[in-house]
Amino acid sequence: MDAAQVLIAGEWRKANSKKTFQAENPAAGQPLPTLFPISEWADCELALAAASKAAEELRRVEPKRVAAFLDGYAHNIESSAAQIVEAAHEETALPVSPRLKDVELPRTVNQLRQAAAAAREESWKRATLDTKLNIRSCFAPIGPVVVLGPNNFPFAFNGVSGGDFAAAIAAGNPVIAKAHPLHPNTSRLLAEEARKALSETGLPMATVQMIYQVSNEDGLRLMSDPRVGAIAFTGSRNVGLQLKQAAESVGTPIYLEMSSINPVIFLPGALEERGDQLATELTDSCLAGSGQFCTSPNLILLMESDQAESLLQKVADAFKERPAQPLLSSGGRKHLSEGVAALREAGAQLAVGGEVVDGPGYRYANTLLRATAKQFLSSPHALQREVFGNATLAVTATDAAELLDIIQLLEGNLTGSIYSARSGSDDVGYEQIAPALRRRVGRLLNDKMPTGVAVSPAMNHGGPYPSTSHPGFTAVGIPASIVRFAALHCYDGVRQERLPGVIKDKSSNPATWRSIDGAWVQG
Amino acid sequence: MDAAQVLIAGEWRKANSKKTFQAENPAAGQPLPTLFPISEWADCELALAAASKAAEELRRVEPKRVAAFLDGYAHNIESSAAQIVEAAHEETALPVSPRLKDVELPRTVNQLRQAAAAAREESWKRATLDTKLNIRSCFAPIGPVVVLGPNNFPFAFNGVSGGDFAAAIAAGNPVIAKAHPLHPNTSRLLAEEARKALSETGLPMATVQMIYQVSNEDGLRLMSDPRVGAIAFTGSRNVGLQLKQAAESVGTPIYLEMSSINPVIFLPGALEERGDQLATELTDSCLAGSGQFCTSPNLILLMESDQAESLLQKVADAFKERPAQPLLSSGGRKHLSEGVAALREAGAQLAVGGEVVDGPGYRYANTLLRATAKQFLSSPHALQREVFGNATLAVTATDAAELLDIIQLLEGNLTGSIYSARSGSDDVGYEQIAPALRRRVGRLLNDKMPTGVAVSPAMNHGGPYPSTSHPGFTAVGIPASIVRFAALHCYDGVRQERLPGVIKDKSSNPATWRSIDGAWVQG
Repeated sequence: MDAAQVLIAGEWRKANSKKTFQAENPAAGQPLPTLFPISEWADCELALAAASKAAEELRRVEPKRVAAFLDGYAHNIESSAAQIVEAAHEETALPVSPRLKDVELPRTVNQLRQAAAAAREESWKRATLDTKLNIRSCFAPIGPVVVLGPNNFPFAFNGVSGGDFAAAIAAGNPVIAKAHPLHPNTSRLLAEEARKALSETGLPMATVQMIYQVSNEDGLRLMSDPRVGAIAFTGSRNVGLQLKQAAESVGTPIYLEMSSINPVIFLPGALEERGDQLATELTDSCLAGSGQFCTSPNLILLMESDQAESLLQKVADAFKERPAQPLLSSGGRKHLSEGVAALREAGAQLAVGGEVVDGPGYRYANTLLRATAKQFLSSPHALQREVFGNATLAVTATDAAELLDIIQLLEGNLTGSIYSARSGSDDVGYEQIAPALRRRVGRLLNDKMPTGVAVSPAMNHGGPYPSTSHPGFTAVGIPASIVRFAALHCYDGVRQERLPGVIKDKSSNPATWRSIDGAWVQG
Repeated sequence: MDAAQVLIAGEWRKANSKKTFQAENPAAGQPLPTLFPISEWADCELALAAASKAAEELRRVEPKRVAAFLDGYAHNIESSAAQIVEAAHEETALPVSPRLKDVELPRTVNQLRQAAAAAREESWKRATLDTKLNIRSCFAPIGPVVVLGPNNFPFAFNGVSGGDFAAAIAAGNPVIAKAHPLHPNTSRLLAEEARKALSETGLPMATVQMIYQVSNEDGLRLMSDPRVGAIAFTGSRNVGLQLKQAAESVGTPIYLEMSSINPVIFLPGALEERGDQLATELTDSCLAGSGQFCTSPNLILLMESDQAESLLQKVADAFKERPAQPLLSSGGRKHLSEGVAALREAGAQLAVGGEVVDGPGYRYANTLLRATAKQFLSSPHALQREVFGNATLAVTATDAAELLDIIQLLEGNLTGSIYSARSGSDDVGYEQIAPALRRRVGRLLNDKMPTGVAVSPAMNHGGPYPSTSHPGFTAVGIPASIVRFAALHCYDGVRQERLPGVIKDKSSNPATWRSIDGAWVQG
């Protein structure tokens, strides 16, 4: 059987490849039949050359045509939704409903359409005019963007259809996507819809390219190729840090979303008021997608009390009762198993779970671990290990001071949640801990689990290192996510007719918000 | 004689130091008497501990008090202007007028006051409200900022008074400044005015700290200390890249302004129209500050013609006629001398200058070098070497295609200038080259020399690598420069009374521009 083809310069073509790989059906625990190529450097070279050319061409394309492509792509995905969902279900074992079909796919096309709207409106360019000095600036495309998506969202964070992809395209850049090797067929189907949409809207055909896999060496070479304008990566800290070093060695901006344990803190009054309800909320959040979310609550912090014991008992019971869902891969189960063992090694005790579960598929028992604050404070690094999957560590503190000590040892995280009493009885406690938690997380939540990441202009799906590589940027939330893939272009004394439309005296686009002499105006 | 004291935790104190250094009087070519300490790590440790504490305290300080400090500091600098200007003149040999007293010092206090106004207005925080989902975000302080200023602007880019300093403070961060060893006394006087202003306005006294010099090893250790929130550096590429690697190894954002040769292109029609005037403009720009500006035109591109020869002859005559000004240091003259030799080695020919000039002071003849496009194209790397000081390379191309080839081999630069005919006769040529130049520079100029860097909200004093480390940020221009020193803080479902003032339903500050459900509104 021939291996699947790669999408380079607008065509599906045979890869330059000597090796192949197969995806798995994680529900059955079996390899899937299709062979996918591990590309050699020659494919990267072809893709880089075509992307460089497309980047030049895209600089002359009107934003509304870029928007038309993003809208067309969204429409095409919807038209082929059944087939794409089926492929993703086969490769990830994530439920069709309520997940792939009715949550993640709609979210993905919504992201593409929000990006289209932003490209059309052009406000993301932050047009800034100093009319007295005749100095103007706006954001402009940064160049070819390489997007490496994660294993856990086959649509919404896929390198060829997800949030980073949409943002990079909206900024006017071509994308070279590296499909995740756990869902190559899903990525292939998506890429084909993108290819059709490029053709339908007349954008350069190399605006979207995709390869499936490369060697580690070629991956690092791709990161440090000077033709790359920027890179977006979502995945493990280990891989992320290697890519970071390669990209930064040649000064290329790289945006990494690497790891997060998303502390959730229950203050005593909240447990007294609504402990049962919170146990259910927490269980639902921990086990959503088998815990394979970037924002899954992996660390629960509580004060010792009967209510805390009661909550943890209820969670343990629910973890035991609910069937273990298949994980994304055999490798994922291995890492999870190793992670739980490492937490136990560091002093955590098993409350429930902690073992591989018989198939079909790659399953691991829903796992709750416990540790005392003293244990955490003596092994803060080991007990902050991200254990990706359906395992969560609960840490109990004897008093507010210990709780604060824990928070002050937390690494950077994407999110941090605090549940407090509606009555106000926790308000003093909240004031004691919130400032410390605030500066260690990108998103602070009240009375809410972190697993929902709304695509809102006010969202921050980002956070301090090592959850990401820069605390000022977000991967979700338009228009802020777009600016990551842009260079700031200043025009000093440049003649009117030579200026980009959005910074001319009279804007070419009445919808664009512009900052003129310090005031934001539209039209 | 005791060495000068360092400013740590609000007090001038004896440094932990075993070695000292002296500044030079570059006009006389003599060392200055005061001994300044080379701090050991103990000083960095003290400063980091105090800065961490101050960062916590500053998070609770109202923005208007930060603004009051910046305004107070500006006022104090003006009150002591005579003494500060005298010290800077002695240490740098830069003219008192028209430079230190009436250009750079007013610019510096203007920057501090613009930063104060921005801190007071709070629009730089980009408050973003999604009222339907109750998700809100704004920028917040990033933590202690280390600022390392360059040798060439003792006030406006000084680590303890310049643009990076003002931006970092306006964002609510404490600053640890490393004084440049070529103007330690100037820095000491400035830091004392900052200390007084802190005391007068009640800010944490460790908001501004200063050391003079550390070993290379301790410098890199400082860059990679996890207590540092961000770093700003202006200086040489060699040093910048070392700091970059150290900071990025621990995920700390570092903003570097490293090198730029600032290409200036004269199209044929412009030379025909106003060649004489342009020769004077170019000469003035090249020799301003003895060419020791980040934006000094070090590369001139022209098409071969009688007019081009005439322009270059006039520039050569003027270079010969105008006296060589003292350079900032003996080391600077050595680098300049080596740089000119390297350009000649790479094929450039001397038109005028190219030799050390007798004192008093460290002088080097105003130098014009020439090369053909063919030479440039065969040694593009060597002929793009930044030669800091009063030396400029002119490259002549036989046709437009050769000119475009040169531009396409340019590294990232802060600026690029194109002079074209007012008649429109160069318009076709402009269209051919401007897009290629545009994406290689941060600021594109028309009919203007790059050496003026206005402090405007629309300014970009930044550019593609290796001129800086990220093409999306500017070091000059408020409020954009402030955001570099900020983390994005999202609040998801957080109760009204717990939100920062600028993202409450009703803003605490009627002056702040906020983006509410996609529309920018004030008040």
